[in-house]
Amino acid sequence: MSLDRPALIAALRALLPADAVLEAEEARRPYECDGLSAYRQLPYVVALPHTVDEARAVLQLCHRHQIPVVARGAGTGLSGGALPHAEGVLLSLARLNRILRIDPVGLTATVEPGVRNLAISEAAAPHGLYYAPDPSSQIACTIGGNVAENSGGVHCLKYGLTVHNVCAMKLLTIEGELLELGSRALDAPGYDLMALAIGSEGMLGVAVEVTVRLLPVPERAQVVLAAFDDVGKAGSAVGEIIAAGIIPAGLEMMDGPAIQAAEDFVHAGYPTDAAAILLCEVDGTNQEVSEHIARIREVLEAAGATEVRSARDEAERALFWKGRKAAFPAVGRISPDYYCMDGTIPRRRLPEVLKRTAELSREYGLPVANVFHAGDGNLHPLILFDANKPGELARTEELGGRILELCVEVGGTITGEHGVGIEKIRQMCVQFRPEELNQFRAVKQAFDPLELLNPGKGVPTPRHCSEYRTLPHKHSHEHA
Amino acid sequence: MSLDRPALIAALRALLPADAVLEAEEARRPYECDGLSAYRQLPYVVALPHTVDEARAVLQLCHRHQIPVVARGAGTGLSGGALPHAEGVLLSLARLNRILRIDPVGLTATVEPGVRNLAISEAAAPHGLYYAPDPSSQIACTIGGNVAENSGGVHCLKYGLTVHNVCAMKLLTIEGELLELGSRALDAPGYDLMALAIGSEGMLGVAVEVTVRLLPVPERAQVVLAAFDDVGKAGSAVGEIIAAGIIPAGLEMMDGPAIQAAEDFVHAGYPTDAAAILLCEVDGTNQEVSEHIARIREVLEAAGATEVRSARDEAERALFWKGRKAAFPAVGRISPDYYCMDGTIPRRRLPEVLKRTAELSREYGLPVANVFHAGDGNLHPLILFDANKPGELARTEELGGRILELCVEVGGTITGEHGVGIEKIRQMCVQFRPEELNQFRAVKQAFDPLELLNPGKGVPTPRHCSEYRTLPHKHSHEHA
Repeated sequence: MSLDRPALIAALRALLPADAVLEAEEARRPYECDGLSAYRQLPYVVALPHTVDEARAVLQLCHRHQIPVVARGAGTGLSGGALPHAEGVLLSLARLNRILRIDPVGLTATVEPGVRNLAISEAAAPHGLYYAPDPSSQIACTIGGNVAENSGGVHCLKYGLTVHNVCAMKLLTIEGELLELGSRALDAPGYDLMALAIGSEGMLGVAVEVTVRLLPVPERAQVVLAAFDDVGKAGSAVGEIIAAGIIPAGLEMMDGPAIQAAEDFVHAGYPTDAAAILLCEVDGTNQEVSEHIARIREVLEAAGATEVRSARDEAERALFWKGRKAAFPAVGRISPDYYCMDGTIPRRRLPEVLKRTAELSREYGLPVANVFHAGDGNLHPLILFDANKPGELARTEELGGRILELCVEVGGTITGEHGVGIEKIRQMCVQFRPEELNQFRAVKQAFDPLELLNPGKGVPTPRHCSEYRTLPHKHSHEHA
Repeated sequence: MSLDRPALIAALRALLPADAVLEAEEARRPYECDGLSAYRQLPYVVALPHTVDEARAVLQLCHRHQIPVVARGAGTGLSGGALPHAEGVLLSLARLNRILRIDPVGLTATVEPGVRNLAISEAAAPHGLYYAPDPSSQIACTIGGNVAENSGGVHCLKYGLTVHNVCAMKLLTIEGELLELGSRALDAPGYDLMALAIGSEGMLGVAVEVTVRLLPVPERAQVVLAAFDDVGKAGSAVGEIIAAGIIPAGLEMMDGPAIQAAEDFVHAGYPTDAAAILLCEVDGTNQEVSEHIARIREVLEAAGATEVRSARDEAERALFWKGRKAAFPAVGRISPDYYCMDGTIPRRRLPEVLKRTAELSREYGLPVANVFHAGDGNLHPLILFDANKPGELARTEELGGRILELCVEVGGTITGEHGVGIEKIRQMCVQFRPEELNQFRAVKQAFDPLELLNPGKGVPTPRHCSEYRTLPHKHSHEHA
């Protein structure tokens, strides 16, 4: 690095308006972590550009002086992807927050990265359109962060993740070049650098404009709640709904501890004696929804549900979902701390993985509540712990790692929608072989050879992996 | 290159069974071109491996001796992506043609690259499932070629291109390393090298296993035929259907010359006095289809259709589509030669682009028939010409280039589903700025630094682009 901190700040102040450079510790403090608050780091300085040109100037300065840059949206990410670098610039895109264009014939919205996810649907609503991916943080999270983490949500079973719903993007490279990627058509020539950038956690470039696909708002949505006296039966029912030829808009599962916590918190009318519930939503035309709901009720009853209830009206539908959406904070009320994992498994392995997660929970003496996107096999085990008990955070992280490795073992992945960030970088050594990790590193070199963009995230170094393999629990696990 | 042709052939024979190396000219002849038959080149030698290990051995040999490799599926591609290299190995994946697994709960099929597109749907049919992307060559074309070109089809408006329907892939690098990319879940950690590989025209690696998503076969499909006395009105109707909140499964347009040719050929019952017809198909549950068809008929009538006809039964639906699918060969009957272009435009620019294409057709004195995926703005102008007339092929290619540049000018792209290959490599210089082309080249370097995989395709060199800018018609066009 060729600039010390005062010189860097002076250089930024020369490029940006006064309100776009945060220097004081109390001004930097809100940026010290994202949603993964177990990891904290004060950034060297925070830059808050108002325009693409200002963002470009920050990147060019950092490139010239080899200073690390971590881009940040709303900071709601759960894998520490926006954790600052101790000697780097934290580049907040929050002020690039204009909706540039809604095209109701092309079915697209073009927005700056700091636009909130829900704000896109609000702006599209007068045209009867909406943006489908709906992370639970959608009130707060921004499309730039969604792009960085390839975010999903309750409805991605039917509508896909961010990568399936973005058609074009402008990406600033670390050298400050503006790449126009994708197109408003379905296809674009050349290598698909747009898809490559989505989910790359700010390590290849910084998105400064995003064009998303909009969909017609469905005529009707309806949700069915089914209760089961056995978690395995609920897991099997998930596969049976899909095998019946129905792709629900959302298909969520909660287990006993999660049901209890949610019900105590928001009184959603959940059956608190159930071992598991499924929430299955279908959307479409009026008649289509009625047909699908009838078929789903049959499948659920045949799968051994002890109770099957359709929401009687829109208010009850909202209430069913309120319980699901409040499940994480609800669990937060009954435990000093909780740690939300994120892995995927093939749908048909659900019953087995839930059983083995319960065994791991007992082995570590740490309760696990399950609240997750069952339809697409995206698990979110919540590990309940107390960070004030010596060693409990470390054991929690180890248990989380074991659960992710279980996902890999059955043919799944270590992330469904939260990304790798700093949190799962060691599990990348389990997910991938050296060939694939080397190819990731080669692609990184093609964009950012000085490794200035979000260093230390996403892709482990060979040393990370060799160290990981010597951890004590790895041996006990391998010999088990 | 460190091996002459006899030594290369001897080395291949040492690695592969006798029937896997084609040396004689008459055996190599069928491989001299793909569907873009205006370009022909005999390969040095053809390798036809039976297994992934044999394919890997070919790549390793070529890498060691720096010999170019062009991978090939069924050879139905239309942009010359599989045109052989004069001093290279043509690597046919046709014998890697096993269906490895159908997973009706996970909704996936795992197949080798030489499996035909339609064979996947046939294998999935007993489970009530199918593979959605349906290029018109789907009887013959293979999934490996579909992956290389990111193929589409009539139904990609609703169901997306190949990239939206593939979830995992095994890719051999030129060094013979096997990369496992993607996952059977929606998301996968690490950079999205799978999406990057799709549409990369065999320039980053060779797909040797592909896992595609399967969908439930819709309960019902129905098609409406609408006739218009004006091409512009038909173009406007396309946007109005979409703006009415309906995403049809397919929305195709044919203009007068295409209607006449198709009707003469297959007697589909098309109104031959129409200036344009639209074919609009919806699929889903029985009721949903009825509701959508009724709404679409209203929109078409309000848009000025002179006739709106729903197919009376499955036989008539098949007949309507038969005319569309036979349109290319039908045009082939009325002209000594035809050249099929492939570009995209924003849907709302359709009427304007059709008008300007007609003007260009008059300027060049070459008839153009239009048959295309109107719903997703993917044009397929067919230029009618006679290759035996001196200079007419060159003028046809120039007209084709002008049409593609028109697509770029209105915010579209130079390919919708056929790829760049050798055909459109010069138009890449119009589509992209040097920054983006440089980034493509850097990504290529990250996979294939010796540039052995399909050299000369897809991404132009800086020299390509500087030469292109000096072409005479470029000047007249720029000054127009």
